[in-house]
Amino acid sequence: MAIVLGSNRYGKAEVRLVRVTRPGDTHGLVDLNVSIALSGDLAATHLTGDNAGVLPTDTMKNTVYAFAREHGVTSPEAFGLLLARHFVTTQEQVTGARISIESYGWERLGPHSFRRAGDYVRTARIFVTPDGTQVVSGLENLVLLNSTASEFRGFPRDKYTTLAETTERILATEVDARWRHRGDSADWDESFEGAKDALVNAFVNTYSASLQQTLFSMGTRVLDSRTELAEIRLALPNKHHYLADLSPFDLENPGEVYIAGDRPYGLIEGTVTRDDAPPASSEWYL
Amino acid sequence: MAIVLGSNRYGKAEVRLVRVTRPGDTHGLVDLNVSIALSGDLAATHLTGDNAGVLPTDTMKNTVYAFAREHGVTSPEAFGLLLARHFVTTQEQVTGARISIESYGWERLGPHSFRRAGDYVRTARIFVTPDGTQVVSGLENLVLLNSTASEFRGFPRDKYTTLAETTERILATEVDARWRHRGDSADWDESFEGAKDALVNAFVNTYSASLQQTLFSMGTRVLDSRTELAEIRLALPNKHHYLADLSPFDLENPGEVYIAGDRPYGLIEGTVTRDDAPPASSEWYL
Amino acid sequence: MAIVLGSNRYGKAEVRLVRVTRPGDTHGLVDLNVSIALSGDLAATHLTGDNAGVLPTDTMKNTVYAFAREHGVTSPEAFGLLLARHFVTTQEQVTGARISIESYGWERLGPHSFRRAGDYVRTARIFVTPDGTQVVSGLENLVLLNSTASEFRGFPRDKYTTLAETTERILATEVDARWRHRGDSADWDESFEGAKDALVNAFVNTYSASLQQTLFSMGTRVLDSRTELAEIRLALPNKHHYLADLSPFDLENPGEVYIAGDRPYGLIEGTVTRDDAPPASSEWYL
Amino acid sequence: MAIVLGSNRYGKAEVRLVRVTRPGDTHGLVDLNVSIALSGDLAATHLTGDNAGVLPTDTMKNTVYAFAREHGVTSPEAFGLLLARHFVTTQEQVTGARISIESYGWERLGPHSFRRAGDYVRTARIFVTPDGTQVVSGLENLVLLNSTASEFRGFPRDKYTTLAETTERILATEVDARWRHRGDSADWDESFEGAKDALVNAFVNTYSASLQQTLFSMGTRVLDSRTELAEIRLALPNKHHYLADLSPFDLENPGEVYIAGDRPYGLIEGTVTRDDAPPASSEWYL
Repeated sequence: MAIVLGSNRYGKAEVRLVRVTRPGDTHGLVDLNVSIALSGDLAATHLTGDNAGVLPTDTMKNTVYAFAREHGVTSPEAFGLLLARHFVTTQEQVTGARISIESYGWERLGPHSFRRAGDYVRTARIFVTPDGTQVVSGLENLVLLNSTASEFRGFPRDKYTTLAETTERILATEVDARWRHRGDSADWDESFEGAKDALVNAFVNTYSASLQQTLFSMGTRVLDSRTELAEIRLALPNKHHYLADLSPFDLENPGEVYIAGDRPYGLIEGTVTRDDAPPASSEWYL
Repeated sequence: MAIVLGSNRYGKAEVRLVRVTRPGDTHGLVDLNVSIALSGDLAATHLTGDNAGVLPTDTMKNTVYAFAREHGVTSPEAFGLLLARHFVTTQEQVTGARISIESYGWERLGPHSFRRAGDYVRTARIFVTPDGTQVVSGLENLVLLNSTASEFRGFPRDKYTTLAETTERILATEVDARWRHRGDSADWDESFEGAKDALVNAFVNTYSASLQQTLFSMGTRVLDSRTELAEIRLALPNKHHYLADLSPFDLENPGEVYIAGDRPYGLIEGTVTRDDAPPASSEWYL
Repeated sequence: MAIVLGSNRYGKAEVRLVRVTRPGDTHGLVDLNVSIALSGDLAATHLTGDNAGVLPTDTMKNTVYAFAREHGVTSPEAFGLLLARHFVTTQEQVTGARISIESYGWERLGPHSFRRAGDYVRTARIFVTPDGTQVVSGLENLVLLNSTASEFRGFPRDKYTTLAETTERILATEVDARWRHRGDSADWDESFEGAKDALVNAFVNTYSASLQQTLFSMGTRVLDSRTELAEIRLALPNKHHYLADLSPFDLENPGEVYIAGDRPYGLIEGTVTRDDAPPASSEWYL
Repeated sequence: MAIVLGSNRYGKAEVRLVRVTRPGDTHGLVDLNVSIALSGDLAATHLTGDNAGVLPTDTMKNTVYAFAREHGVTSPEAFGLLLARHFVTTQEQVTGARISIESYGWERLGPHSFRRAGDYVRTARIFVTPDGTQVVSGLENLVLLNSTASEFRGFPRDKYTTLAETTERILATEVDARWRHRGDSADWDESFEGAKDALVNAFVNTYSASLQQTLFSMGTRVLDSRTELAEIRLALPNKHHYLADLSPFDLENPGEVYIAGDRPYGLIEGTVTRDDAPPASSEWYL
């Protein structure tokens, strides 16, 4: 029995890149948070401190800024692919690269003026491994709420169950979704917008017997409308809204006044997939 | 020389209220975070633990939910005024009330469906004191950026100055603004929207020699367009964007690739007022 | 009636300074977050964009690092005084300086090894104005809990009151305290440790009929033991712990199982002072 | 090709439990944040909204509080095992349970008085699946710093490399560690303390040629000293401290004044294992 090094990776996290394009008086703005993790034959630095194979994380940061100038940033996915392939192809000891990108939206206010949109963060994760390339797009922090058309009943009861059944509740969640592309090329922006719209539309239009049902509906809608996607993972916190008990004040509360809770919260996680989806290369499964 | 009780207050903070209105199939949604602080003759509880004058903070919380049902919520300012006056008039020992409200915006997605807007938080602060009533409206977390039309030069240099002058930089800030109303009645929503638009328009349209100049322009624009306001305070962090030095890689960087910095940041704070503004009753001055 | 510039200030916020001293094999470590705000005759930059009086905030940052090398950092208060006086005396147009410092504690693990202590943040605020110099020390984020010796009863009841009286509850708070020194010289570290110990001891040893009573006891203990202090302000959130209702499961709960609440929370704020305390020069009063 | 439900789970997250024991005048305090996720035959609720197999997450919350009273909380691991086994054995459709617990430390100040320790959070993750039971212990937020005995040199250089080699730097990290137990019984508290001490001691006593080398040393030390553990995963951000360039001010800076950086940061992740470690049952691998 010996103690040995297992799987490992390293890189630079949260490189904050803002790129301004100035094709004329009307400027463009891209705002990214880029994280890089490389893996491969990195045993020496762990075991002996020999860094001959350890490209500095500072170099990774430099590469992000230099690539933004040399190649531009057409989409988070395309930029991530460029970076991932660069490290794998130029560093012999590196066999895997994971690029994780958060993209922050800005609304245009004028030719060179912008307001940061706070409604969601777009994400992209690129995995280049010896087994292939995998592109995962997604979004986070999108908070959706239906003020009706949600119920929760018919559930089992054990000795610790006190919850009343309800046919009328607020359903609110903060969507954390990521979807896996079949291939490594697409119109990334159009694909993202389509998937996002499908998620939102499914949430809005599903009469919900459970947040699980809503989750499956959202995932199905995305896969139905986006043939380039293999599967989708959703993590949906149930942001509970409790009907305030106003009876001590001789007041009825017919679905009007709610307490927005912080903790605890329900958390529903699920994958919606295709029965012929190719296996994921890495870091996908729940 | 004796040790004595000085100024004091107490209350319930961060009461999370969501109110749904259902006038028909199209619902309305109000989402508030309400904080209450009362002051007055509260010495006994401090000195002896006699709580005869200490309305429980739990009661304040209950009052928020009950009032939302009894009186509705037409605007944060109106709701805050109702609450403040209630406590001052019904509790003899209470002579001052401060109600602070954050209001979170939601965009409509359907008759009963909403998406949380993340671009800013609307605020209201109501002060009822023996000297009168003061209403302060405002907003926070509004992030604005101009990709040009900003310079910073002509500044003094001492032995610790290394900054280069620039005639071209990104100007970005996260607006924290609060403005004081002359009176205690207004069309609060219309007033808020007008002030917000004035702030944004002034930021967009000011050629900026300094963030201070932009601040004064923003404040002036608000007061010019909103006669119901006495003065405005702004706190504007300078969210620095540093031009990446790509020269080691034989790349020019003509205003294209920037590093978004976290800390430190500049912080510009200022008041814009009218020379005939009535004095503030409390908690206003920088 | 004209629109005019009111009070204003500007500076650099959150300059993160770590200083290592190496007098021998046993190193010392100081870890500060320094914020600077200057005021004075700054109208020109606001009104016309003339920056002749605007020492760059970048220079302020440089000054922090240079002063750490030139003068060392014996305490946050002493370092803040150095910085404040420097700006007021070297920049003619600057008449006021406020230096705010957070100091993070590290526990020694070895001659050159440290572990960050997370139990509180020490603070110092230095105000130099034409009226004089004011030093305010303090601490934040110190979470204290008594599992008994706390009650809350005898309070008034109105129509919205549902809270039951209790003679047994958990009392927990996160102390935010700041205390004002009479003068501008002291053994700052010894003074801080003494004040902190007095706060903690008073919390531990007070049988509490209300958090207000505990607050006054804490403030009194500090002033009693530290003659160099003029007064103290405390903001004490009441971190509610709710006894879990286990009766649906046929379980008693004799003060054993509690739900730790997030929001809302009570918030008790108060000043304890001396009847002969000199007035504060600025930014002190609740 | 059809769209189908993939892996999924659901539960209640962040149940905040505080338990006070009162064996005499000297009280005990346990402060946990418990999250539960169940998996199994949950297709119906996703596909049709049939909730016959969906034990409410509210019931899970109730169970946490009731179990704290019925069974006590001897350690996070033991409490998590109780909960996990309860759900798997009492709900026929549930075949897997994951319990994640954060445990917050409190230092004793008196018989019934405590101060929250902020130096780290202890974690426990319990996985009960058809394949067996897996216990993972760990800690987060432990910030360690060596002010010397760290270098980084001998690394490869590409066209984007500008970093200078160094034989003297600050090495600081915020330890996120989790270690997998061989079995499902142990003296959990003693095991935790032993592993924590091994981590800290290895950090303190390793002359570091790279943070990777420190990571491997930390992991090795834990496995060397704790035979009950199968392997350990570490995520170590490299909290960069940049030597301030004081040369523009004609000052040398011999390892004294540093800028503590926020972003970006290096991130080193690795597993240290035994060559005969049994495979993990779930959710372990990088």
